[in-house]
Formats: sequence, C-alpha cells, structure tokens
Amino acid sequence: MTITIVGGTGPEGSGLAMRWARAGESVIIGSRDAQRAAESAAKLNKAVYGNGGVPAGAAEISGTDNNSACDSADIVVLTIPFESHAAMLKHLKPALRPGQILVDTTVPLAASIGGRATRTLGVWQGSAAQQAAELVPEGIAVVAAFHSVSAELLRQDGPVDCDVIVCSDDEHAAQQIRQLARKIPGVRALDGGKLENARIVEQITALLIGFNIRHKGHSGLRITGLPPEAYDV
Amino acid sequence: MTITIVGGTGPEGSGLAMRWARAGESVIIGSRDAQRAAESAAKLNKAVYGNGGVPAGAAEISGTDNNSACDSADIVVLTIPFESHAAMLKHLKPALRPGQILVDTTVPLAASIGGRATRTLGVWQGSAAQQAAELVPEGIAVVAAFHSVSAELLRQDGPVDCDVIVCSDDEHAAQQIRQLARKIPGVRALDGGKLENARIVEQITALLIGFNIRHKGHSGLRITGLPPEAYDV
Repeated sequence: MTITIVGGTGPEGSGLAMRWARAGESVIIGSRDAQRAAESAAKLNKAVYGNGGVPAGAAEISGTDNNSACDSADIVVLTIPFESHAAMLKHLKPALRPGQILVDTTVPLAASIGGRATRTLGVWQGSAAQQAAELVPEGIAVVAAFHSVSAELLRQDGPVDCDVIVCSDDEHAAQQIRQLARKIPGVRALDGGKLENARIVEQITALLIGFNIRHKGHSGLRITGLPPEAYDV
Repeated sequence: MTITIVGGTGPEGSGLAMRWARAGESVIIGSRDAQRAAESAAKLNKAVYGNGGVPAGAAEISGTDNNSACDSADIVVLTIPFESHAAMLKHLKPALRPGQILVDTTVPLAASIGGRATRTLGVWQGSAAQQAAELVPEGIAVVAAFHSVSAELLRQDGPVDCDVIVCSDDEHAAQQIRQLARKIPGVRALDGGKLENARIVEQITALLIGFNIRHKGHSGLRITGLPPEAYDV
C-alpha cells in the first residue's frame, strides 16, 4: 500500500510521513517541486532512521511532484492550508484514479484569509472535506481525518495522546483509514459517522489552537465513556 | 451562592443539581410549574440523600417557578431544549438582574425541529449562547458551559470523565463557572476563550451523540497535551 502525502513538506504532512514510514508503510512526499519533495524525503529519512539505514519492518520515504506522487498512490493524504485546497484538488484531478482514497486533513481556518487561527471560515459545502468530495473525480472515496493530531507531537518520538475521528460516506475506506491512524503509537481511531460530520471535527482544531495559544501546549482530544470495541472497528 | 437551574426537572438539569447540592451549593430547580419543581426537588433530595436528611457540607435542593427561582439566584443555569431557548429567555427577562451570571448549556440540535440529534441548526448569532447574550438584559454575564457532560453520568454517583470547556466574554464570570464545574468529581474545567467559541463547543455535543448511538456509551471528551495549570485558572 502506497501513501502519498500532498503537502508532505509541511509540518503535519511530514509528521504523518515519519510515523507511517516507521510503521512500514511506503510513503511518498508530494510537492509542487519534485526536487524539493526529494530533498524533504531525504531529510525525513535521516530524522527517522539516522545514518543507519532503514531497519526491518520500516519503510523509506520518497519524494516527487504532486501529480506523479498521486499517480502511484493507493491513499492520497491532503495536508495543505485551506487557501490552496480547491486549487490543489483541481490541479490533482487528472492524476486521481477510481479506487483511490483521498484523506482530507484540512481545516478551514480564518488564518487562510488573514484572520485568526482560532476561527474558521464557513464553507458552502459544509466543510473542507465536503468541498473535496465535490472536486474529486467519481470513484474516489473521501475521508476526513487527522485534524486534531498535533504536528509537533507527530514529529517527536513519543506516543501521541489523541483520538482520530474519521468521517466518510464510504465505510470501507473509513475503516482502512482508521487502521492507518492506529499505526501511530498512542492514537485511537473512532468512527465519526458520515462525511457531513467533518464540519464539526474540522472546527475542533480551531478550539485546540486557542488552548495551545493560551497555555503553550500541543493539545489533542480523547473521547471518553465508550466501550473498548468502539476503537477496534 | 444560589444556583437556579431553569429546566432543572430534565435529565441534564437535575444531574447538575444533584452534583452541586452534594458539594454544598444551594440549588433551586426552576420549572414553569412551581408545584412540579417542588416535587422534582423533593425527589432529587431523596435520590441524593435517601431518608437520612442532608449531611454536613451538603445542601438541600428546593424548587419553584422559573421567575421566582431566577429572582433569588446568583447564577442561572439554562438546561432547556433549543426549541424553548429564545422564548424562555424573553420570559425570564423581567426576573434577571445585573450582576447575575447566565450559564447556557443549550445545544441547537436539529432534533429541535424534528431533525436528527446528530446534526445542529445554524443560529444566526453563531451559537445558542450568543443568542442568549442578545436576549438577556444588560449587566448579565453569559457563560457557555457543560454541553458535553453526560446527563446519565451526572445522575449516577461516580466521577465524571469529562472536561468542561467554558466560553465567555466576561473573564470573572467564566472563572466562577470553571470553579463550579470543578465541584463535580472528575470534571476538569478549561478556558475555551470568548463566547463566540461556543459555536464550536455546542456542536461537539452532536458528534458525541453520534458516538453514543453507534456504540451505546455515554461519551464525553478530555483535552490532552496542556500543562496542569491550564485546568487550575
């Protein structure tokens, strides 16, 4: 299974790349500039594995331009700022193929248009993920996830104290992404229902950013009060 | 300090009443019908204290009609369904006095107009709490809180595994309500920023209701990754 991370040179994308590569997933960093993507992948490999090479059970991170990276992917993860969201999806469209899963981590922060990172923009479709669903070709399953996972914590070594709430209209794709989330040590994944619920999950990030500003932390969230099997399906 | 709970005969309101009375806070159950409120208060006292009377350090719950109950209150807590929200605030207006704190726990669930409890309505002001702020007389501090605390868990005896996110434009009032939240065993209280953030906090409840339906739980949420002092101020 190959995971392409569009915007993988940024903090959230590179953090996810590091975690998944370490768990043995084949990860491609996508960027507008193939050279920059390759350099970024080399740096990430060094950060994860040092100079000792890739250990057994882990995988190497590679990098190339966004469209080539999408062409080889089973799963395409979008980790880009909201101001690039619609344009990037239009740009990627020719490279996306039926059967692929598009994971949208985008949060429509007001910072995208010069406002605050603690506020969100209203998106006509309801959420960034629903905007994505409107822009991808037919046959691509859109899954919203990973909004609340701190990029800082992903780029460190320890377990990540956060639940990932996964929303999608495609139950099989959602399950695959929940399994992918669980490969990050500490993370539990939960079925957040249909893609329309992404509008709530995306907004939680703005609230967490407020906590981070007020208290200088790297906040996340845990859902309490559910039976253990809620995190296993 | 006297706390009046408007809608205190319902599950969330009575749960909060039981917890605060046990912690020694003087609680008045408000209802449209004074007789019904008094009966409800008597039942709650029995549920909390049995037939042994009120122990030292605890307080008795009383009940009366909403307007009389508000007249005696330092803090008025709204635990009513969204469909009654605006009308109730207009009804209470003559009984509210400057210096009081109005705590709004209301979530604008689509169930209010026959839709789903996993969806919310758009409120013109941004949130139920901001609608409340528009409807109360001058000098009343509006605080949004307690949306995600399970009524079921409040009505049981054990600690409540949930953080309460408190939003208000009045920092002093917000601090008082965070202190009140901490009187519920297990609860931690967090500064959620300005009242405008209530729009995010209110919506989280719809997501939690979805988890409860899918997994038969009484879900809540915890914020992770913040320093301990974030919960002390």
